[in-house]
Amino acid sequence: MFFKIRTHTCGELRENNIRENVVLNGWVDTRRDLGGLIFIDLRDRYGITQVVFEPGFDKEAHENAAVLRNEFVISIEGKVRKRPEGTENTVLNTGQIDVMVNKLIILNEAKTPPFPVKDEIDTSEDVRLKYRYIDLRRPAVQRNLLMRHRMYQLVRNYFDANNFIEVETPVLMKSTPEGARDYLVPSRLHKGKFYALPQSPQQYKQLLMVSGLDRYFQIVKCFRDEDLRADRQPEFTQIDIEMSFIDQENIFEIVEGLMKLLYKDISNRDLQLPLQRLTFDEALEKFGSDKPDLRFDLEMVTLNHVFEHTSFKVFQDHVKNKGIITGMLAPGCGEYTRNQLDILTDFVKKLGAGGLIWMRVKDNELEAPIAKFLTDEEKDHLVEAVKAKPGDLIFILTGSRLQALSIMGSLRLEMARRLNLIVPDAEPKLLWITDFPLFEWDEQTKRYYAMHHPFTSPNLEDIEFMETDPGRVRALAYDLVLNGTEIGGGSIRIHNADLQSKMFKSLGISGEEAEYKFGFLMNAFKFGAPPHGGFAFGFDRMAMIFAGVSSIREVIAFPKTASAISLMDDAPSTVSDEQLKELHIKIR
Amino acid sequence: MFFKIRTHTCGELRENNIRENVVLNGWVDTRRDLGGLIFIDLRDRYGITQVVFEPGFDKEAHENAAVLRNEFVISIEGKVRKRPEGTENTVLNTGQIDVMVNKLIILNEAKTPPFPVKDEIDTSEDVRLKYRYIDLRRPAVQRNLLMRHRMYQLVRNYFDANNFIEVETPVLMKSTPEGARDYLVPSRLHKGKFYALPQSPQQYKQLLMVSGLDRYFQIVKCFRDEDLRADRQPEFTQIDIEMSFIDQENIFEIVEGLMKLLYKDISNRDLQLPLQRLTFDEALEKFGSDKPDLRFDLEMVTLNHVFEHTSFKVFQDHVKNKGIITGMLAPGCGEYTRNQLDILTDFVKKLGAGGLIWMRVKDNELEAPIAKFLTDEEKDHLVEAVKAKPGDLIFILTGSRLQALSIMGSLRLEMARRLNLIVPDAEPKLLWITDFPLFEWDEQTKRYYAMHHPFTSPNLEDIEFMETDPGRVRALAYDLVLNGTEIGGGSIRIHNADLQSKMFKSLGISGEEAEYKFGFLMNAFKFGAPPHGGFAFGFDRMAMIFAGVSSIREVIAFPKTASAISLMDDAPSTVSDEQLKELHIKIR
Repeated sequence: MFFKIRTHTCGELRENNIRENVVLNGWVDTRRDLGGLIFIDLRDRYGITQVVFEPGFDKEAHENAAVLRNEFVISIEGKVRKRPEGTENTVLNTGQIDVMVNKLIILNEAKTPPFPVKDEIDTSEDVRLKYRYIDLRRPAVQRNLLMRHRMYQLVRNYFDANNFIEVETPVLMKSTPEGARDYLVPSRLHKGKFYALPQSPQQYKQLLMVSGLDRYFQIVKCFRDEDLRADRQPEFTQIDIEMSFIDQENIFEIVEGLMKLLYKDISNRDLQLPLQRLTFDEALEKFGSDKPDLRFDLEMVTLNHVFEHTSFKVFQDHVKNKGIITGMLAPGCGEYTRNQLDILTDFVKKLGAGGLIWMRVKDNELEAPIAKFLTDEEKDHLVEAVKAKPGDLIFILTGSRLQALSIMGSLRLEMARRLNLIVPDAEPKLLWITDFPLFEWDEQTKRYYAMHHPFTSPNLEDIEFMETDPGRVRALAYDLVLNGTEIGGGSIRIHNADLQSKMFKSLGISGEEAEYKFGFLMNAFKFGAPPHGGFAFGFDRMAMIFAGVSSIREVIAFPKTASAISLMDDAPSTVSDEQLKELHIKIR
Repeated sequence: MFFKIRTHTCGELRENNIRENVVLNGWVDTRRDLGGLIFIDLRDRYGITQVVFEPGFDKEAHENAAVLRNEFVISIEGKVRKRPEGTENTVLNTGQIDVMVNKLIILNEAKTPPFPVKDEIDTSEDVRLKYRYIDLRRPAVQRNLLMRHRMYQLVRNYFDANNFIEVETPVLMKSTPEGARDYLVPSRLHKGKFYALPQSPQQYKQLLMVSGLDRYFQIVKCFRDEDLRADRQPEFTQIDIEMSFIDQENIFEIVEGLMKLLYKDISNRDLQLPLQRLTFDEALEKFGSDKPDLRFDLEMVTLNHVFEHTSFKVFQDHVKNKGIITGMLAPGCGEYTRNQLDILTDFVKKLGAGGLIWMRVKDNELEAPIAKFLTDEEKDHLVEAVKAKPGDLIFILTGSRLQALSIMGSLRLEMARRLNLIVPDAEPKLLWITDFPLFEWDEQTKRYYAMHHPFTSPNLEDIEFMETDPGRVRALAYDLVLNGTEIGGGSIRIHNADLQSKMFKSLGISGEEAEYKFGFLMNAFKFGAPPHGGFAFGFDRMAMIFAGVSSIREVIAFPKTASAISLMDDAPSTVSDEQLKELHIKIR
């Protein structure tokens, strides 16, 4: 079908174009018939322009326009005019003009779409995903993709300007023996062998440091075959960086610089640097989480010192046996009813707490079931510790440290929700969590595991404890947390063979096992590895937060569902037995 | 290990730094002991700086330096000084200075590498690939990766500036029924089902046009499970673009703009635009190839008109039966010996030719076995047609059109090689091949196939022949050819349902078959598809040509071998039966 190439996009014409002859191409967004005239809002990615079919202006064009329906694709020629007085549209950039049509070509017809191409629609996400190509016409979704596009360019230009080199790492890689959740790809040329898709380019980026590339970055697809989880995608995008001859401070500086740039450019906010930092321990004690949401206060307080000499049995036990007593003030909640308190007690019990201790702060006393077990001095200390005022409510949880703090952290979020403490356009709260433990104790197998991965460097000051008290060894590992969501993390890596051996020893990994599991990387390290460390951002999650939406599917062009299905094309799907034969596999 | 962060890179110090105290980190590139002094060339990505250990300057540092060997990773502190008169190194940017060391920290030792970290090495590619992390330290390889990095940024900034939107398309997609050579990925969550890795994002980019995104680009990994072929990779990188409401000219303009930019920035050459264009037919008749190398002449000439009325049986047959007589002049080769001519005859026979006709051009005659069968008039016409002069040699091939032209095309390349017609730094020759045939006839199955894919638009002027004479229908398809290599290609797509039906009919594809094979894309087209078309560049091949190397493996950080193996980590590899069980598959 022959058609004229547009002279302008649908977002371009202004008053200074009046009387020009123009060609526009686009979609029929809406059609209105008014007193023998046909008004079409013509839409493309760049905007909307009103075009007018008037029998007196061009009879044939007007007649041809009779068949136009929503989402038809058309090409029009016409003359730009000033809109008649009083019909201007101030919402549209093009709202001062319209185009009188003298030629219409219908480039394509369109069936009625399954939902309107508008922002406010009441359509199930499944239908939106099945017809994603129509959903993507909606202005809000296009805005998200355009913002994502902008983020890509900002990120790459930033790292380019900072001497990072972009390197593509392989997608078809070796499956690791610890490769649970690896997606596998059968090899046709090598019977019985498989590639794996990368869960991250971790090994490659460390090899690039061994290669002396000094600073690497990549915006890269990663893959993880996880069980069903809302808001996870089997393939996701990472901003991946690695640097040589640096320490943690250098990484922080580079990451913070990027975040400042993104905030300025995408949200027009001035991010104050350096960012706040909390150690893992502080975060846990004050906010009950290693990804605390600091858009509101509700700080927790460890109360062990208050009850150091208590005769109250419950507290006594925890003070003595390495347990914890953690408290949190709910300001102004002193009038919570018994029923409200029961609901919150149920909330923490479901998370595993034995119960919830609460105290209403009155003018000169604490009103609480346990009040009678506490001395006046303890009550005074408590009020002071949590900075309580009359009319407030105090929550206390006891238990093993990690569990009690985590549950109080959940209660903290719940109370923030109940008290509406997060205002919609609240200042974003970005912070570092540092000093993660190097090891995590597993009760089931009764051994320590690497909290990140076995190449994460311990804090050099703690090396002496690696054998004697592994639990207290801090890692040079850090997370970046935004509004209570982890948006990235990284670590300084071990580059020294002796330290690496020590690490494997602490993890109970034998020399042969290390060789088998991490052989080629360990081997590379023998040829001169520099000190290095890195970071990886979850790009989808970052884009989601910057776009102000609540699902990463809103910032991915063709997302899959929580069960890893593409509703648009029905992937994954069955394949022919011939295909499987060629790959030397069959279905079990 | 504690160490000081570098104050400068190894490529940074100049005379204006003299007397400064500096910290450098890097690899020991070479070590020279001279009269009690130890000279180390310290290397990082940015350059080399000479550092000097002198017992008089710092005894301890000098003693510690005794153990240093090539590729040790060290950190030094020292004072910059002007090199003693006569010891400057003009090859190095840092060659006017060196650093007198007062502190040495060995960050890591290194085993002796399997090959020297130098550009000129005589090491097999297999060894280089096995130790790729060391190979990547070599300056030439680093230069290639840095150039590739630069290309990424130029390409993306160019498309960004031209209003293209970068969209990531899925890597886990649906396997197409025509998916021979698809890599498959078994689904764990959905037993018996598979994803496929994209051979190209073709369908997605067309959907993005249906979505109204107008201009899309992506630098994207694609995958093809091909049989062993030198210089192919199972995963390769494409620059992928698609545009709406455009014609072929708009695509050419965008692509040419990018090539001009790359040539200017990477090679400092001014590319003259617009690029030369040849139709598929012209290219075939003049150069015997749809990717002709125009860095040299040796133009072929179709001689059918010269021998229109010949009585020479061999020629007569081909003129009458739609065959072809093609000639090529080899200037100055009139003295080729019978032996040389026999070798060339063997060359074309191996490619399937019946034989090679040759004629030595003498002052007033043609000396050739077949000379006696030709009239004087025919000889004159021939000499005139190929523009022969005494001392030249004329080659003639006859046969079916495509075959004879292709073989002459190969002979053309062979003669260019023999005559050394390609000078090493020859001006690059970039051109368009247009007007590809829409259909390709397959002798075996006796039917037409789409030469590109079934969504490629015919030239609208040729639609009338789609049923009556499919062979003469030209496609709106085009390739970009650089120095005899296809570096990209694309087409205008069919956006109209009627034309698409006609296309399927010509291909003998029934409605149900089309629905089954291309269902979701066809479905999307029913909701208003704009006219659109696109292009895809082979990024690896482009990078290879710009880097002036002869294998794409030289411009890929971690390439695989021709048999799709990674020698560094032995991928693909066997996996545990548990992993396969989880994926519901087993080895046949």
